[in-house]
Amino acid sequence: MSISVRDRVREMKLISPVAAGAGEKVRNEALRLAAEALKKHRPEIFEANREDLERARESGISPAVMKRLRFNEHKLTDCLAGIESLIALENPTGRVTLHRQLDEGLILKRVTVPIGVIGIIFEARPDALVQISCLCIKSGNCAVLKGGRETASTNRVLFDLIAAAAVQAGLPANCLMQVSAHSEIDELLECDDCVDLLIPRGSNAFVRYIMDHTKIPVMGHSDGVCHTYVDRAADFDQAISILIDAKTQYTAACNATETLLVHREIAGAFLPEAAKALARAGVKLRGTEEAARILAKAAPALPDAAQTGKEKVRAQDKSPAARILPEDIMGEGDFSAEYLDLVLSVKLVDSVEEAAAHINRFGSHHTDCIVTQDDEAADRFLTLVDSAGVYRNCSTRFADGFRYGFGAEVGISTGKLHARGPVGLDGLVTYKYLLEGSGQIVGDYAAGRRQFHFQEL
Amino acid sequence: MSISVRDRVREMKLISPVAAGAGEKVRNEALRLAAEALKKHRPEIFEANREDLERARESGISPAVMKRLRFNEHKLTDCLAGIESLIALENPTGRVTLHRQLDEGLILKRVTVPIGVIGIIFEARPDALVQISCLCIKSGNCAVLKGGRETASTNRVLFDLIAAAAVQAGLPANCLMQVSAHSEIDELLECDDCVDLLIPRGSNAFVRYIMDHTKIPVMGHSDGVCHTYVDRAADFDQAISILIDAKTQYTAACNATETLLVHREIAGAFLPEAAKALARAGVKLRGTEEAARILAKAAPALPDAAQTGKEKVRAQDKSPAARILPEDIMGEGDFSAEYLDLVLSVKLVDSVEEAAAHINRFGSHHTDCIVTQDDEAADRFLTLVDSAGVYRNCSTRFADGFRYGFGAEVGISTGKLHARGPVGLDGLVTYKYLLEGSGQIVGDYAAGRRQFHFQEL
Repeated sequence: MSISVRDRVREMKLISPVAAGAGEKVRNEALRLAAEALKKHRPEIFEANREDLERARESGISPAVMKRLRFNEHKLTDCLAGIESLIALENPTGRVTLHRQLDEGLILKRVTVPIGVIGIIFEARPDALVQISCLCIKSGNCAVLKGGRETASTNRVLFDLIAAAAVQAGLPANCLMQVSAHSEIDELLECDDCVDLLIPRGSNAFVRYIMDHTKIPVMGHSDGVCHTYVDRAADFDQAISILIDAKTQYTAACNATETLLVHREIAGAFLPEAAKALARAGVKLRGTEEAARILAKAAPALPDAAQTGKEKVRAQDKSPAARILPEDIMGEGDFSAEYLDLVLSVKLVDSVEEAAAHINRFGSHHTDCIVTQDDEAADRFLTLVDSAGVYRNCSTRFADGFRYGFGAEVGISTGKLHARGPVGLDGLVTYKYLLEGSGQIVGDYAAGRRQFHFQEL
Repeated sequence: MSISVRDRVREMKLISPVAAGAGEKVRNEALRLAAEALKKHRPEIFEANREDLERARESGISPAVMKRLRFNEHKLTDCLAGIESLIALENPTGRVTLHRQLDEGLILKRVTVPIGVIGIIFEARPDALVQISCLCIKSGNCAVLKGGRETASTNRVLFDLIAAAAVQAGLPANCLMQVSAHSEIDELLECDDCVDLLIPRGSNAFVRYIMDHTKIPVMGHSDGVCHTYVDRAADFDQAISILIDAKTQYTAACNATETLLVHREIAGAFLPEAAKALARAGVKLRGTEEAARILAKAAPALPDAAQTGKEKVRAQDKSPAARILPEDIMGEGDFSAEYLDLVLSVKLVDSVEEAAAHINRFGSHHTDCIVTQDDEAADRFLTLVDSAGVYRNCSTRFADGFRYGFGAEVGISTGKLHARGPVGLDGLVTYKYLLEGSGQIVGDYAAGRRQFHFQEL
């Protein structure tokens, strides 16, 4: 590999308009051929994956991570189903979103087009490579792909099959490219004149690193500090059910709730009940001194010397207590913690306004929920909370492209520009203005010899 | 002014959701009151402007620039008309762009909302301050404004009147803020955790500096290297008329054509004719050796010693020659020149594809035009050219929010994300997803106890 990443990306940039110009038929054919090739060459894919797993085992990778690295018949079936549904999705490009006559014979159209060259850096999961490259093919984009090194062998085989299918269908050679060395990421970050968009996936620290080290626009999110606010007009059972789901259904997800805010008026009644349910679900509580006091009053801590048998058993089975321990008292500045674990921050507030202000200040503008039966309170919350997703009476875990009905998800954006929240194929397109005239010049309009007659078509 | 820009912007960030929540009525009322105040306090405004003009005159500013600094009855009338039409424009926020039932009682809406805090750095033109602050009020955004120092006194009066009107109408105090020292720009550029979007206007070098020195997303453009490509199937008269308008109607504009590309097959016939018309319009030509040869053949240069009387007259009146002088021969690398003057680069190409490749490589992805009667060639050009505006048979000078019928223009973006091309009020909003449920949890869907039933509402 003697050609630098920069030179390869520059070449990709030059051919990207050709790739963008390939029609829907060519792109869907590329996807069909890719599915066919994956099916046909499964033995090579599985063999390469065995090599990756072998290396991973030797380096002592945990069984949980090993599961993500594995690419077997089951994962292949999922991938093929994903490609099928992608083929069935509406073409995201070529949509006319504005069609206006400016004057007789002067017609303006705004049409969706591929963004161009997209760099995607993703976690070590072979199915992610298939999903991402197919999303780029479907949307007419060229893509630079960098997957996790733990699945390098599998990635190589998968990539070669998909890239060959793209070319066979009629897309330009080099419309997909894979970089594999970690050092090549830094090279890629320098290519701000050739790469139109970067989508990093992975740990917070990694995404933050990418955002801090490139001038290329970055789409995605680093933190996911989501809140559930239980209003004074909440239905307690509903609130507890939502809270348990939002915290525990999948703790490692960015849309899991990390902080519980409770209206002060109902805290005495609600908190102890919620704490018991959370403790049963294995959730450890942290929080303000005030929250700790309320819980301590409801379930007083016994002096160590006088622990009952029951308390001893609980200490043994390590299930969390339905209260906040002294070492878990939080200060004001601690509330931007993202646990991604069975831990929850708790704080009381006096109003919807205070809840919203806390969320805007300490949250990550991802997804936040109010539980309330009060329409007026809900409206104020939905207005005041400055997040990609603002929910009422349902779990923050719904923040997801599939659950929103987008069919395919590129990622979730906490930025406010271009795409916000779960991003589907729409996030991979931009638009251009096409203006067709018959010799019109601006001088005529400036001099008043002609006038604009705007008319939607 | 002892409070730092950072502290003031942080406070603005915290109140921005409140400003965003103010309804259309409050915002339009703020605009109405602002117009009233400007009308009522015209003597103070004009007096402040006289101070600015006095200072400018003393520092020897050119009459052309002086004209831009002036704020008189005529400019005020224009400003008031602008505010009137802004009030009449549809509210850009609160529009529901997706309304979907995910399952019974679980309703997803995507609603447009203000971006939040926008920093705008603009040229020394008092009317720009009025226009920009009013656009931000109309779109529900908070704004940090930095105008050119040459109009500091006028800006101060205008700003105070508009900010007071906003508060009087019910918008939060501090929803508008003005910074005036140049050093405060650098402070502002550091506020990437509080400012959601920066819009710099002004010289290329200035915009480039902003883009290179902040992590805040920047909307705008530095260069405007626009092309007019005359295809082999062009109508010559139409091509020349378009070319003259695109080059000369307003040379300082970013959408003025800087490069003429001509299909090689027609160059011998077209170029000399075009060159004559361009010379008459005062345009000096630069270009490739090949273009120079064609023009020299059509109007041979006479040896210096044997200049005719006519040639002498031409040299005297300094109108450009209809040919390319030896010192104006261009090399490959020279074609990204932006003249903003009566100068035009000329190059021949073999095809639409070569024209598009040249434009994508040397252009600034702003606005580019093909002149042709050939529908198929036009289609290929519109597809292959990767610019915000791609035109057929009309002047590149049409790239403008007012001419597109947007009513008001924030600027023109050559970036591909968020907003591209001329940006109206739509460019000042983003969206959020609102999800209203009745206790739904993700666990039920994950376990198959409930299914999504996507249905557009």
